[in-house]
Amino acid sequence: MNAQAIAALVGGRVLGDPSTPVTGVSDITNAKAGDVTFAQSGKHAAAAASCPASVVITSEGVPVTGKTLIIVPNPKYAFVKALSALVPAEKFPAGSHPSASVHPSASVGPGSHVGPLACVEEGAVVGAGCVIHAGAKIGRGSAIGDGSVVHRNAVLYSGTRLGKGVIVHSGAVIGADGFGYLQEGKGAVAGSEDAIERYAQSDEPHLKVPHFGNVVLEDGVEIGANTTIDRSTVGSTVVGRGTKIDNLVQIGHNCTIGAHVIIVSMVGIGGSVRIGDHVTIGGNCGISEGVTIGAFSIVGAHTLVYPGKKFEPRSVVWGNPARPAAKFKAQLAALSSLPKALVKIRGLETALQELESRVRGLES
Amino acid sequence: MNAQAIAALVGGRVLGDPSTPVTGVSDITNAKAGDVTFAQSGKHAAAAASCPASVVITSEGVPVTGKTLIIVPNPKYAFVKALSALVPAEKFPAGSHPSASVHPSASVGPGSHVGPLACVEEGAVVGAGCVIHAGAKIGRGSAIGDGSVVHRNAVLYSGTRLGKGVIVHSGAVIGADGFGYLQEGKGAVAGSEDAIERYAQSDEPHLKVPHFGNVVLEDGVEIGANTTIDRSTVGSTVVGRGTKIDNLVQIGHNCTIGAHVIIVSMVGIGGSVRIGDHVTIGGNCGISEGVTIGAFSIVGAHTLVYPGKKFEPRSVVWGNPARPAAKFKAQLAALSSLPKALVKIRGLETALQELESRVRGLES
Amino acid sequence: MNAQAIAALVGGRVLGDPSTPVTGVSDITNAKAGDVTFAQSGKHAAAAASCPASVVITSEGVPVTGKTLIIVPNPKYAFVKALSALVPAEKFPAGSHPSASVHPSASVGPGSHVGPLACVEEGAVVGAGCVIHAGAKIGRGSAIGDGSVVHRNAVLYSGTRLGKGVIVHSGAVIGADGFGYLQEGKGAVAGSEDAIERYAQSDEPHLKVPHFGNVVLEDGVEIGANTTIDRSTVGSTVVGRGTKIDNLVQIGHNCTIGAHVIIVSMVGIGGSVRIGDHVTIGGNCGISEGVTIGAFSIVGAHTLVYPGKKFEPRSVVWGNPARPAAKFKAQLAALSSLPKALVKIRGLETALQELESRVRGLES
Repeated sequence: MNAQAIAALVGGRVLGDPSTPVTGVSDITNAKAGDVTFAQSGKHAAAAASCPASVVITSEGVPVTGKTLIIVPNPKYAFVKALSALVPAEKFPAGSHPSASVHPSASVGPGSHVGPLACVEEGAVVGAGCVIHAGAKIGRGSAIGDGSVVHRNAVLYSGTRLGKGVIVHSGAVIGADGFGYLQEGKGAVAGSEDAIERYAQSDEPHLKVPHFGNVVLEDGVEIGANTTIDRSTVGSTVVGRGTKIDNLVQIGHNCTIGAHVIIVSMVGIGGSVRIGDHVTIGGNCGISEGVTIGAFSIVGAHTLVYPGKKFEPRSVVWGNPARPAAKFKAQLAALSSLPKALVKIRGLETALQELESRVRGLES
Repeated sequence: MNAQAIAALVGGRVLGDPSTPVTGVSDITNAKAGDVTFAQSGKHAAAAASCPASVVITSEGVPVTGKTLIIVPNPKYAFVKALSALVPAEKFPAGSHPSASVHPSASVGPGSHVGPLACVEEGAVVGAGCVIHAGAKIGRGSAIGDGSVVHRNAVLYSGTRLGKGVIVHSGAVIGADGFGYLQEGKGAVAGSEDAIERYAQSDEPHLKVPHFGNVVLEDGVEIGANTTIDRSTVGSTVVGRGTKIDNLVQIGHNCTIGAHVIIVSMVGIGGSVRIGDHVTIGGNCGISEGVTIGAFSIVGAHTLVYPGKKFEPRSVVWGNPARPAAKFKAQLAALSSLPKALVKIRGLETALQELESRVRGLES
Repeated sequence: MNAQAIAALVGGRVLGDPSTPVTGVSDITNAKAGDVTFAQSGKHAAAAASCPASVVITSEGVPVTGKTLIIVPNPKYAFVKALSALVPAEKFPAGSHPSASVHPSASVGPGSHVGPLACVEEGAVVGAGCVIHAGAKIGRGSAIGDGSVVHRNAVLYSGTRLGKGVIVHSGAVIGADGFGYLQEGKGAVAGSEDAIERYAQSDEPHLKVPHFGNVVLEDGVEIGANTTIDRSTVGSTVVGRGTKIDNLVQIGHNCTIGAHVIIVSMVGIGGSVRIGDHVTIGGNCGISEGVTIGAFSIVGAHTLVYPGKKFEPRSVVWGNPARPAAKFKAQLAALSSLPKALVKIRGLETALQELESRVRGLES
């Protein structure tokens, strides 16, 4: 590898000697001679110039002296691209470990690894170049696209479908039954936010709604550790291509999550929610049953969206209940001056009484 | 199957030809000829009449024309009953898979399935007609009632007891140690909400409180994926019959959860909490240590109940801190008009000053 | 065992006959003859005196009559010490179960148990006296210190390092990839709180940031069931010695959690957060990316700390956004009187108008 090859890899332009050899990748702090590193902005120029790295990825006009430079619009992005290409990922041998349980009717594609004590159940189809880690359970009739990774002890219930290049981290559970129950005297699904308002306080036992659907994770989706995504009643709960979901997130039955969505940890999403493409949802949010959130919207951390609520594309919402972020911030600011305002109100009352008695004095 | 048989199944009355054959079950959108579907109210009457289904479950007075009708008080409920009865559930063969680990001292009842790589430890007793899915771990001396299902990779710690017809979804952990620690200089259990108020800011290390108790899940309980229920110090943490708990819920040591309770996802319940029968708890709530919530109460989503708080039966509470829902809503409404109110206060101050100077003028 | 031996064990002083035999340990309610029990304060003195226990651990001046007493500063703490010493913990036989998968290059120390269907991968090192429970997965090259316990179906990703006496409960996932993605047009990591503010609303797909680091859990750490701790990009995510983390907690990549910290259930901590020693974090909190919280601080339940925020040692903070607890409480109190204050404002406006017209009358 040399500077020219890295530049080609990240779509950049070399300033200096294109044949400068590159033997490693590192941030500025840990850089050694032969490494490629990056300087995101002028702030990092001096440190980059004085570190031992041989090649620096940076932007037009960042004054890094004495190094071979690779010029790109976003140095950090280019650096991560180089890092991903140059540092070898952990490798796992093709074939099934003897302790794995692969049903005779299941198929595992060429180059795929099935780890120790993993299980590929009846009729499941694992594509080419996949890694099914130790203890992962691939339920009956599931299908996994090429190049996907299912980490240790993750679970796919029967009928789950994964696109290509999907990553499911350990302990994630894809395809458990949705949380739906009925009470005859109430007429609606209990357990949803909606139901809390309308249907609780009955003494009936709950009838379980059966869930015959499945979960579909499209190409390039990544699911965090111990996240849970429930199957739909009929049809599919769908997570769109490229969407990234953090650890410990709950996605309810019959949801449709768009493409390239970001969902941060500890978010709970109820049943039948529709999230548009490129939406970002901050941590610890609750999105109640039946909500629609338009594409490119942002939901701030710790927000609660009430049942059935609809937000237009490019909304920015926050708070409990969810409201436009500007309104939320105005209310927070007002709240912080409220204790003083209450004192002012008492002052006004006293002042008005005094003035009234003076006016009475004038009138008499 | 025909209309008459379905009517008998759901406790309804046929209007039209009771011998109309029924070959499938579907909602209106996906209905085919021969299906039974449902129309919950007048709003769905026209769609039900024009769909290809042969039989429609509906209520008295809903004007669905041209179909054989089955009249019930709650069509959706009856439809789900029919669906559960007519669509065959996934079947698993009786017996233990060769890759499972069943201790010689454990017993597995007739008709029960122990899946690949599942483990039934020393002295555990699995009843009749159970399904212990792939990778599930049944700890030492646990007991599982007839007809229960433990899904893939779920875990029961030693000594857990499940009633009949219990469902534990994948990744759920039943019976881990409670979160209890002591600091000698402080005199109380750390880690609880209570402790946060009273006992933090000590520099002592924490002594682990041992947990010799267990967890009991009564008949008909369903536990969501990756939910955790901790064992008690002594005695049992109990979840009452028919209670349904969603995914990713935490229930602390020594809790007593009543019967037919609904707990939505992402709820954290501290130690020694008592929840009455038929309570509904919305998503993302925190219920602190030592709280008591009376039967038939409703706790709104994102609510925080402070340590030791007691709510009467049929309470409806919301907010942080939890207060009566009506009060919470009034405060929210007031908060939303607060920014304008602050402007009014400044206006009043100015107006009062002006008036005071006019009065001073009159006085002089 | 006798009273004298227990006193030595807990560091107390005997009042009465030091040779009183002790055959069991129990709380007052369940005590039998021969048991040692405890009375935390004067409130429990009468019950302790009349229960069948033979020995009572209590404090100076608590009037428990007719029993052999052991006097300590904190009876409950001493009782738990006695309980831990006298009640035998569950034992597991040394050696690997035949159904476990232990890689030939892995090493398992003397006295350690590797349970059924557990997996110790290539190059992993398990110390002496450890328990690796059924189904636990110890990733490649991990190292586990002496006396540690990894419960059923817990997962350590490759390269995880555990100190001595660490406990990892079932379903916990240690070392999954951090939640880091880049968009070229935006220049920063998406998915963090910070990113939500600065970088969302782009239509680019996300580039995964590779995570080459690991997770280190120091001596005496305990990790709750289904908790997730992500590996760092480079270097280590570290949890300091003696720290106790409850169930269902998320700790992001590159965090440094201090020693003897308490983190209650359902807390989400973003990337690169630094938590000082002896901090206590209440349930359901969100701590955003890049936050620093000084030693001995307390974060109240349901608090949201915004990205990059720094709190001094011994801070006590609460609310959304996190602010000093006293301020939060004052604002809550003010909010609860706000509906009445709004009525007062309207009253003041009316009264002022009336007074103004009286003044106008006087002026004319």
